[in-house]
Amino acid sequence: METDGSKEPDSVSTVIPGWFSEISPMWPGEAHSLKIEKILFQGKSDYQNVMVFQSATYGKVLVLDGVIQLTERDECAYQEMITHLPLCSIPNPKKVLVIGGGDGGVLREVARYASIEKIDICEIDKMVVDVSKQFFPDVAIGYEDPRVTLHVGDGVAFLKAAPAGTYDAVIVDSSDPIGPAKELFEKPFFQTVANALRPGGVVCTQAESIWLHMDIIEDIVENCREIFKGSVNYAWTTVPTYPSGVIGFMLCSTEGPAVDFKHPVNSIDASERPLRFYNSEIHTAAFCLPSFAKKVIDAKAK
Amino acid sequence: METDGSKEPDSVSTVIPGWFSEISPMWPGEAHSLKIEKILFQGKSDYQNVMVFQSATYGKVLVLDGVIQLTERDECAYQEMITHLPLCSIPNPKKVLVIGGGDGGVLREVARYASIEKIDICEIDKMVVDVSKQFFPDVAIGYEDPRVTLHVGDGVAFLKAAPAGTYDAVIVDSSDPIGPAKELFEKPFFQTVANALRPGGVVCTQAESIWLHMDIIEDIVENCREIFKGSVNYAWTTVPTYPSGVIGFMLCSTEGPAVDFKHPVNSIDASERPLRFYNSEIHTAAFCLPSFAKKVIDAKAK
Repeated sequence: METDGSKEPDSVSTVIPGWFSEISPMWPGEAHSLKIEKILFQGKSDYQNVMVFQSATYGKVLVLDGVIQLTERDECAYQEMITHLPLCSIPNPKKVLVIGGGDGGVLREVARYASIEKIDICEIDKMVVDVSKQFFPDVAIGYEDPRVTLHVGDGVAFLKAAPAGTYDAVIVDSSDPIGPAKELFEKPFFQTVANALRPGGVVCTQAESIWLHMDIIEDIVENCREIFKGSVNYAWTTVPTYPSGVIGFMLCSTEGPAVDFKHPVNSIDASERPLRFYNSEIHTAAFCLPSFAKKVIDAKAK
Repeated sequence: METDGSKEPDSVSTVIPGWFSEISPMWPGEAHSLKIEKILFQGKSDYQNVMVFQSATYGKVLVLDGVIQLTERDECAYQEMITHLPLCSIPNPKKVLVIGGGDGGVLREVARYASIEKIDICEIDKMVVDVSKQFFPDVAIGYEDPRVTLHVGDGVAFLKAAPAGTYDAVIVDSSDPIGPAKELFEKPFFQTVANALRPGGVVCTQAESIWLHMDIIEDIVENCREIFKGSVNYAWTTVPTYPSGVIGFMLCSTEGPAVDFKHPVNSIDASERPLRFYNSEIHTAAFCLPSFAKKVIDAKAK
């Protein structure tokens, strides 16, 4: 683990001096850049490069393999939507599994539900957990809930070992399908998720950008339609520091009690800690797609 | 008018060689960059710097004073939403005024309505019109509709000279409130718009980003609430190449027949030229705001 902040990582040196620039074959020809005030951490885990920096205007930023995972300024949109889209769609969720999500932000949101008894999280990279606890206490606060059990290891193996029908909901908070998360976008993985869910259980997976990755989304929708015999829906939201400014979610349910993802059955008690982004109206709105995306997704969903 | 493509403008030379980078005090500490294949035009009009370049992955790009106005890849979102949000909200629009919008994209969308008899456009900068006709034929095609009259001049003066109650709808397709469009965000301008509208007429103005400019939006909402005695609503949409990836619209109606912007009364015949972005569901969804924005806007709207 390197912690010498004086050496600039590759993603800094290629651009405006003192700025971080997000360049990837996943979004060729474009890059979003943030001005760095100070690099707080850089290290190399068994799985990826991990960096944290203080930005000029987006608060602290977590970067994995050169790709922004969260900033303090806009993390609310992603964490609240990936969590509450599935969990507000089923009555009384009790057992939830988070795959990835090592920063703890999804745990923080899952912990809002009084009905929940057990929250498992399986994150492959312990460095992500440690770095989040050190630099993002308002995100990693999710780990403090006594219902949470952290499993450091491979999400696919963990799911395979889970008894069939264990979970009410599985949330897959993964990075992009380049690197350690590749398997989480493939068909066998979705089958494993389906097995671990109870009848009428739900899954929500990070599902890329309609502006950039309709080809990936098309494949995910096709795979999910074959595997999940309940509902299969695509939703999306705004996250300024993600490429193209949006991120999508695949929401599916297994055969069993019907799930109508577009009309949430739960609302959230935000009296203690306000929701910054999510509300019931934006939940429903997230399923309305631009015509160019709707055409492709509806065709695959049939 | 300079057309020497060999001299790189400021916004190119400060960043990754061969990339355009959008740096502005309007969004400090961040920049979106596009890879340049070729600079096609650069000039200085009486009002601003004008640049067109061929990007690697977003098609041709129009830049005014260093700020991206449109790219061929994502212009559909902005042009379709700023036009159809107001025009689908009133029955049988007949007379429409576009302020700004010199690229012609809004005209292209306005021309879809068979009920429309007269389309005025008032653009202050002739160079924007000429450059669009030369480099963006699929956008500037809007000028070919025989109902269109182009007025080159100041939008505020044009509106003041218009007889009261002339228009069913005014669309203000402006750049940011730094530079020639500054006046278009101020209270006297909104009063002038209100005077030029018929009772129950509608206005839609470009109204910045909820992620970046809640202070500006707060002022706009407050001004509009004082001036427009019908509906006052804020809507937003995704545009990847705009700062923070979103852009908002202020939608207001004058006293008269009630306008319910959230529930469109018209649908669009897209059989001849398909809509790439807009549909009735995304129209309604555009009015659902994240909690942090809803709180501020609802407070001002009361």
